[in-house]
Amino acid sequence: MDEVILTLDAAAALTGKVLARAGLSAEQAAAITRTMIAAERDHCRSHGMYRLIGFVHTVRAGIAKPDAVPVISEPAQALVRVDADGGPANLAFERGMPLLIEKARRFGIAAMAINHCVHFNALWAEVEPLAEAGLASLAMTPSHSWVTPAGGTNPLFGTNPIAFGWPRPGTNPFVFDFATSAAARGEIELHRRAGKPIPTSWAVDADGEPTTDATAALAGAMLTFGGHKGSALAAMVELLAGPLIGDFLSSESMAHDAGRGGHPYHGELIIALDPASFLGASLNDALARAEGFFADYTSGGARLPSQRRYEARPGSIANGFPMPRALYEELLALAG
Amino acid sequence: MDEVILTLDAAAALTGKVLARAGLSAEQAAAITRTMIAAERDHCRSHGMYRLIGFVHTVRAGIAKPDAVPVISEPAQALVRVDADGGPANLAFERGMPLLIEKARRFGIAAMAINHCVHFNALWAEVEPLAEAGLASLAMTPSHSWVTPAGGTNPLFGTNPIAFGWPRPGTNPFVFDFATSAAARGEIELHRRAGKPIPTSWAVDADGEPTTDATAALAGAMLTFGGHKGSALAAMVELLAGPLIGDFLSSESMAHDAGRGGHPYHGELIIALDPASFLGASLNDALARAEGFFADYTSGGARLPSQRRYEARPGSIANGFPMPRALYEELLALAG
Repeated sequence: MDEVILTLDAAAALTGKVLARAGLSAEQAAAITRTMIAAERDHCRSHGMYRLIGFVHTVRAGIAKPDAVPVISEPAQALVRVDADGGPANLAFERGMPLLIEKARRFGIAAMAINHCVHFNALWAEVEPLAEAGLASLAMTPSHSWVTPAGGTNPLFGTNPIAFGWPRPGTNPFVFDFATSAAARGEIELHRRAGKPIPTSWAVDADGEPTTDATAALAGAMLTFGGHKGSALAAMVELLAGPLIGDFLSSESMAHDAGRGGHPYHGELIIALDPASFLGASLNDALARAEGFFADYTSGGARLPSQRRYEARPGSIANGFPMPRALYEELLALAG
Repeated sequence: MDEVILTLDAAAALTGKVLARAGLSAEQAAAITRTMIAAERDHCRSHGMYRLIGFVHTVRAGIAKPDAVPVISEPAQALVRVDADGGPANLAFERGMPLLIEKARRFGIAAMAINHCVHFNALWAEVEPLAEAGLASLAMTPSHSWVTPAGGTNPLFGTNPIAFGWPRPGTNPFVFDFATSAAARGEIELHRRAGKPIPTSWAVDADGEPTTDATAALAGAMLTFGGHKGSALAAMVELLAGPLIGDFLSSESMAHDAGRGGHPYHGELIIALDPASFLGASLNDALARAEGFFADYTSGGARLPSQRRYEARPGSIANGFPMPRALYEELLALAG
């Protein structure tokens, strides 16, 4: 594939130009740039600068507010609420994070709800800094209703990712971040474009029958991973990051989009737990036992989640990262 | 199958006799009886009175302390710790639950760690009463290390169940409870006894190769559900309900058992979230939107988790429940 190599600084500058031209405030643009460049740095392309295209569309469609100002409140002693004011989740998360960390340390556990946000960034980019602050955390968000529960035919869930982070002294945190859908919607779209069949575990057609036809799948409903267990988790994400925090279900986000094809508009929930509060003087012993667990994890040949991201990181920082030339040129055009 | 019908009262009386003969204190016995009878009432046999056999063995092997007295402490403002004192989790949970509820309502979110407990009851029996108290909750516990991570060969995880509860005004809570292993260990054992092949998704042999041979599977390692995503969740359970709360990993529980074949001895984590704290005056609106979600969930033919349990319940309360005669006679013998 024809590619260009971009340094992280050059990529950040290009991202900033695209966002400025789309009318983003400097603070909103800076927060989005940080997470997008982190994704490219880790070779996590699906959450990288490619998403600028959809995000600019989401701004132009009037779904994302370019100069949103997040507002922080405290609905209860161990809760933080950040009203993203119709803007992206990125700045809202950054603004709320210090108070979430403070509350988790003060109370042992705390939660942060982000409301009224447009969401298109990876959740690992949120649980990772929490782990670097010494906290374990769990993050989740609904999306648009594309996914049917096991045994169903109707789209109900979003792709509903769940991310988890665990602090590891002296090394990169243990982090996972996965969609509760069996596949990414974009993956089905790529199969459709290429005229390739999809595995039957990915989706059902409009009649609820398993299908290998990507077009029929997109007109039907995607499936969750892991059958009824994955569906149960997807439902948990809907409830905890929807009604619990007074925000949209995936079906409501889809209705709000009203065919405009924008990124999901809804809420997010982050739960942070402070190991030091639970463990007191035995904190270091417990973290050392966790390190033994990670050693056992990989000793039988399994790879830790996020290992690929961490392995890609130093090279990107030193030498930049590759980007398909077609995407690069599209972004240059968006930057004007 | 040759069965007897037991009323819930008769079943409770028999359970009480078995536990008294095993030396359980009256309070410990009452708490175990409540959860076992709840399981039988809901036709959830795998967590019912059948488990008395293994539990009595666990007491006789010196792994479970029959007259344990749970001790409650507060490591941080929003945390409850119940030291189960080497006894079953049941009484420890019941003793800690009121303080967990109080803290969740006061702070918006709270967590309870149960430490040094023997665990053999279903987690749904814990998240269900929390939902009846108006709270959303998440519970998890490791077990013995029988399950390998995706891509691995060595047993590392327990069957590591995760349960979730959500309050539903006027009807039974939304509750799920599933093992993160692809199958229950007992299910593989049943296939071995019957000489039946198992699906290749359940386990690998000692060389890490997929196997349909139940004996080879029991000598190898079980698999998680959902590939690397299920493995990531199983790891989260190990960390949050192990090192985070200063208690055993599944591998440490297994080592502590030292071949005695007892129930797992370790800890449990329960996180409780108070919708009223998040939602204030919009609580009822949000709960009503969640009810709309449940209506959509079932409209396409999918069943809600726990629906079978709830359907079995009224019949058991009115008329009792069936038990295999062989089990009944074994329990009569245990009761002496």
